[in-house]
Amino acid sequence: MKGIQFIRNSSEEGSATDIELPRPKATGRDILVQIEAIAMNPVDYKVRPAESEPPKVVGFDAAGAVVETGEDVTLFQKGDLVYYAGDVTRSGTNAEFQLVDERLVAKRPTSLDAASSASLPLTSLTAWEALFDQLGINPETPNDNKNKRILIIGGAGGVGSIAIQLAKLAGLIVVATASRKDSSDWCQNLGADHIINHHEDLPLQLKLLGFETVDYIANFNEIDGVWEAMAEMIAPQGGIVLITGHQTQLDFGGAFKLKSAKICWEFMFTRSMFQTDDMIAQHHILETVAQLVDRGKLIATANSSMNPINAKNILEGHRRLESGTTIGKLVLSGWE
Amino acid sequence: MKGIQFIRNSSEEGSATDIELPRPKATGRDILVQIEAIAMNPVDYKVRPAESEPPKVVGFDAAGAVVETGEDVTLFQKGDLVYYAGDVTRSGTNAEFQLVDERLVAKRPTSLDAASSASLPLTSLTAWEALFDQLGINPETPNDNKNKRILIIGGAGGVGSIAIQLAKLAGLIVVATASRKDSSDWCQNLGADHIINHHEDLPLQLKLLGFETVDYIANFNEIDGVWEAMAEMIAPQGGIVLITGHQTQLDFGGAFKLKSAKICWEFMFTRSMFQTDDMIAQHHILETVAQLVDRGKLIATANSSMNPINAKNILEGHRRLESGTTIGKLVLSGWE
Repeated sequence: MKGIQFIRNSSEEGSATDIELPRPKATGRDILVQIEAIAMNPVDYKVRPAESEPPKVVGFDAAGAVVETGEDVTLFQKGDLVYYAGDVTRSGTNAEFQLVDERLVAKRPTSLDAASSASLPLTSLTAWEALFDQLGINPETPNDNKNKRILIIGGAGGVGSIAIQLAKLAGLIVVATASRKDSSDWCQNLGADHIINHHEDLPLQLKLLGFETVDYIANFNEIDGVWEAMAEMIAPQGGIVLITGHQTQLDFGGAFKLKSAKICWEFMFTRSMFQTDDMIAQHHILETVAQLVDRGKLIATANSSMNPINAKNILEGHRRLESGTTIGKLVLSGWE
Repeated sequence: MKGIQFIRNSSEEGSATDIELPRPKATGRDILVQIEAIAMNPVDYKVRPAESEPPKVVGFDAAGAVVETGEDVTLFQKGDLVYYAGDVTRSGTNAEFQLVDERLVAKRPTSLDAASSASLPLTSLTAWEALFDQLGINPETPNDNKNKRILIIGGAGGVGSIAIQLAKLAGLIVVATASRKDSSDWCQNLGADHIINHHEDLPLQLKLLGFETVDYIANFNEIDGVWEAMAEMIAPQGGIVLITGHQTQLDFGGAFKLKSAKICWEFMFTRSMFQTDDMIAQHHILETVAQLVDRGKLIATANSSMNPINAKNILEGHRRLESGTTIGKLVLSGWE
């Protein structure tokens, strides 16, 4: 089968190559998926191997068809059209076939093609887990949530684009950050009630909207530069969810302590990495996301596409993601 | 009225003095309480004034009788026997009369005397908010919680003593830490299922109990020395609640991030300090605690007592608390 292997931690020409790999075999709860489309995420370039490490197939978003099922598989059969983000500890989606535990997979939206479906899993799982598992917002009670405010830092990114929509479905007042005209328009189109600029004074902009504080902050961008601002903006007893590590020493006490705030980490791969008892929750989340998409409640956020899936395009995708300015999701589809 | 005023941040003889203070007047939602008994907490010595600051009446646990009500008071009337922890931003309980917002107060248990009642509010509110508000444990579903494990670091202290009991009422498996024979027995008597020693290797002791991880950690002791151990012991998607600030730079990322853990602060005075909309929650918590006590479900943890309430005994109490080895609560009652 075809696969794209990174041989060093770089997005320069030659860092990834098209190669022929052995097609794996499904056992246990694994299914083998023939991949039609993939989407790219910042984690892709964060887990490229060092030159001293073995070459690696990365990529963590795919849509495809089930072609083989392990002996313990109960959720799928051959021919099912599925989508998933998978498991960061295993070989990735940048290959023609991939093994994935069925508990991390769901049938993809019937209203979308493979490429648009592939744009959804990693960001939807991250946004869902961040808002509903980590921050503890109840998605079933939009009426109780309607006076609650959430600040979504990095609204136009992959995770932010889904989080804006999920937060609106949950009934919250959504303030999203964006720093350019096009990203700001994007957030507004996804339903954000207010847009503020994360390159300017966030607490001041929030006050100008009439909000002293927000009940929740979901920060899908870097955290160092806005740490003090978050301490100022978070409401007493508020919750903050983070997905990106910090680069400098940050004090999690101080105002956060006085306010009895919660600081929550969301790492989408925790369930699969630690094989938690509730790993199947990701199957259920992806099922719900597919239903929301098919009912027109959630918009897939694929915003640019390339084909075919090959080393040249994957490297180009890594370079775009590294720039930190992509809006929505970048998808790749087809094999040459 | 009589009052005890600290004039400097010390527990040495002469740092607090018995003085005569003007009796305050209740307005708004304040009630005026004639104090019969008080209890001591570590916060008492943490908020003593510096010599450059004005003298201060500290103390944040009391039981007494309502003697006056402000014009907006609806929850109480003259003669009600009440208990409360109060508000750290206002004058404290080490005085014959004190003003307190009615939303922070409840009628005290009918089965206890004033001294035992006074031992309850601050620790019960802290333990309740830590487990049920911050960690999000549902106290109503003990059956769903019965496979969940909580590690309570500092089980024999004031807050730990209540937290052990509340965690057992909520159905959890409770591992408490204690470092001496008497404190270990104390935790066991309060219902802890297992005791381990926080001066020895915590993760190893946990493993010897057959537990790789715990779903929750409630740390009511210092946090610096056990930070790495907490990162190791917390389960994926687990929650940690802290009440004491850190002395060194601690990294809240690393394993906590990989595990999608939550780090929650519990500061019992947040609601009153920020006058949150749900400030009245403390009234309701104290009502529930009184019911649990009167129904024999919760044991008040007063463990030593002194009388009368005067500067000499208050200073002695501060010295005992500063030693960090007190078990349960120290209460003072009566005026000479």
